[in-house]
Amino acid sequence: MDTSIIAVGTELLFGQVINSNAAYLSENLNHMGFNVMYHYVVGDNDGRLEQILRRALSDTDLVILTGGLGPTQDDMTKEVVAKVMEAPLYLDENCLADVKSYFKKRNREMAENNVRQAYMPKGAVIFRNEAGTAPAFAVSKDDKWVICYPGPPRELHWLFEDSGRDFLRRFMDKQLCYRVIRTIGIGESDLETVLMPLIDNQTDPTIATYAKEGECTIRVASQRDTMEEAEAAVEQKIEEIKGLVGSYVYSLDDEELNEVVVHKLRKKGLTLSSAESCTGGAFAASITDVPGASHVLNRGYITYDEEAKITMLGVDQTYIDQYSVVSAEVAKAMAKGARYEAGSDIAVSITGYAGPDADYGREPGNAFIGYACDDKVGAIELNTKRNDRKWNRNFFRLRMLMVVNDILDDME
Amino acid sequence: MDTSIIAVGTELLFGQVINSNAAYLSENLNHMGFNVMYHYVVGDNDGRLEQILRRALSDTDLVILTGGLGPTQDDMTKEVVAKVMEAPLYLDENCLADVKSYFKKRNREMAENNVRQAYMPKGAVIFRNEAGTAPAFAVSKDDKWVICYPGPPRELHWLFEDSGRDFLRRFMDKQLCYRVIRTIGIGESDLETVLMPLIDNQTDPTIATYAKEGECTIRVASQRDTMEEAEAAVEQKIEEIKGLVGSYVYSLDDEELNEVVVHKLRKKGLTLSSAESCTGGAFAASITDVPGASHVLNRGYITYDEEAKITMLGVDQTYIDQYSVVSAEVAKAMAKGARYEAGSDIAVSITGYAGPDADYGREPGNAFIGYACDDKVGAIELNTKRNDRKWNRNFFRLRMLMVVNDILDDME
Repeated sequence: MDTSIIAVGTELLFGQVINSNAAYLSENLNHMGFNVMYHYVVGDNDGRLEQILRRALSDTDLVILTGGLGPTQDDMTKEVVAKVMEAPLYLDENCLADVKSYFKKRNREMAENNVRQAYMPKGAVIFRNEAGTAPAFAVSKDDKWVICYPGPPRELHWLFEDSGRDFLRRFMDKQLCYRVIRTIGIGESDLETVLMPLIDNQTDPTIATYAKEGECTIRVASQRDTMEEAEAAVEQKIEEIKGLVGSYVYSLDDEELNEVVVHKLRKKGLTLSSAESCTGGAFAASITDVPGASHVLNRGYITYDEEAKITMLGVDQTYIDQYSVVSAEVAKAMAKGARYEAGSDIAVSITGYAGPDADYGREPGNAFIGYACDDKVGAIELNTKRNDRKWNRNFFRLRMLMVVNDILDDME
Repeated sequence: MDTSIIAVGTELLFGQVINSNAAYLSENLNHMGFNVMYHYVVGDNDGRLEQILRRALSDTDLVILTGGLGPTQDDMTKEVVAKVMEAPLYLDENCLADVKSYFKKRNREMAENNVRQAYMPKGAVIFRNEAGTAPAFAVSKDDKWVICYPGPPRELHWLFEDSGRDFLRRFMDKQLCYRVIRTIGIGESDLETVLMPLIDNQTDPTIATYAKEGECTIRVASQRDTMEEAEAAVEQKIEEIKGLVGSYVYSLDDEELNEVVVHKLRKKGLTLSSAESCTGGAFAASITDVPGASHVLNRGYITYDEEAKITMLGVDQTYIDQYSVVSAEVAKAMAKGARYEAGSDIAVSITGYAGPDADYGREPGNAFIGYACDDKVGAIELNTKRNDRKWNRNFFRLRMLMVVNDILDDME
């Protein structure tokens, strides 16, 4: 079913608020097999809202609006919907009782203008809102549907979970299954080139690639009569994709790389320690972002200066003098030192230049990642050729995660 | 000037990505005095993009597009713009040289389809993109303007800062000056209540408050005939604001708190060390995000488990047994230990529960920040009453920065 989403609110046009409601609804609707075709944002202006709503209804069969259901003068979504759908507003006694009881429960006085929130378009299906005072509702005309939700994300989420998803099921005859594959180490154009034989002939399942900082995702989706058929079609396509780009895939379940690493470590009952120079704690921070990280990371060393590397990690001064502080040898010594000091199963380290400055004839974006575990010690060199501190630090961090992920995979 | 923003990309309609570009552009355009009236999101489909672009051009005088400038098959923004603006595409040799040099600098092979990115609409003003391979461009017809930016936020931000804002100034007849004041420790409604006498009578300068995670910003803007007048008006209003909420202000120049702290440390020639438990390196990472951090942070300790606190920081086992590991006493001992071990002027520490779990009768969101410097050692307790790991970790990190900022201010 072709769908449009309209978010109403001048604060969105000011850029004060990001339109997270559209993303929330889109994700949920796509999961259910709806075809979301347009997002619109319009301010608190009845003329423009009416114009956009009429356009959306002429282009698509379902229009979902968020925002503009509040009690104040600038909230006019309901009035516009009533006009366009030819469903005049009436005071709904049940809604009025709900609004009154909302305030009573909280020991707050109900303002007179909250009565506005109990007016509903004639013939609307009404959804009670226990997370706020504005009920949601759905109203139809000529086989087209309009559903209105309040703007605060908390209320939208509550309503969608409580009644929205169930109500929308009536519109779907096909079942949709999709999976998101995450890759790292291959650019989007290269990825698409390799996958082209699969993408070019796609009808169902569909394949879409998407680049985000430092990595790429592949979304595989299928719509079939039964969920079993859709799942089987997706599963088979994933196998084909793995055959082509398997070595770059780090997750088949849309997990972030730090989550993948922490979950693998926990599953194997292994511990990790880190020794960071140029990432300055960002690697450890991304590991400890994951709930349960305390079971796998016991210690991290942030060794910005040479002396810290010597004192905290036992790196040999002669190594630093001989190879320079940014070198494979020092990276390895840092990892070995961290592993020994922390008593961890695996240790990973980094020494390098994130930018804007570099030294000893090296360039920003040049770094060495060291690693140490039971049976091996080694280092890899990175060279991003970018003088972008933020980008480099994020890239370094991701590559450290990859190194640990590879070590864990090799153990299998 | 009435403006529409169109974001192109099926990933937005899938809800995989939130449309942060529209918010970024809206905020910047509003600052400059543009009137943003509509946001649109449309997928990678040339027919629908053309339809939306034609509508936007009939409603508004300036249309800014983001996304769909990539090298692959589904990137079609340029082709649609060329058609609608009647400006056929040609291969721009300068753009081609830039794309080639982008890959050469990174020692990467240029894929054949990257040549597509060097095609430009005839007569377009071209903006070089040093953050990626897709140049931005502006093209006009019948006094209407279309500007196209690539979709990755990093590239959009780079381009807008480098050339976008300057280019857009030509459309404004008044001069706009604005400053962003950052505060921490006061909620948005309280801030607005205190500032109400200034906000209520606002015509110019305007004052707008805006809440983001854990902090609030105040934007003061003035549009006058000359920049001098606008600057003076903003300056005077800032003094009035400082008179009302000065104690919560940490920056008058839209600097992040980590930047403020690093710059103050450098100015005073002081060094910092950190000992982190529940933030797991996030504090040190935010300090080292700032260029030049190597001058101020020499070491950081990530001491997740008890033994790490004892071995790395010299915390007394009897302290832990007596007061429990999450306590003011242990936080103080961690800060003292970090300061001693690192030989830094100031040390800051944290021990607590980010969630989802807590222990020893404490709740997620409960933590202690310790600090140590030449003349004082102390600790403060935090209690967010939230079981939201991400939110808590960010809040803890900000409060650690505040503690260091306060110590630095007290030294003045």
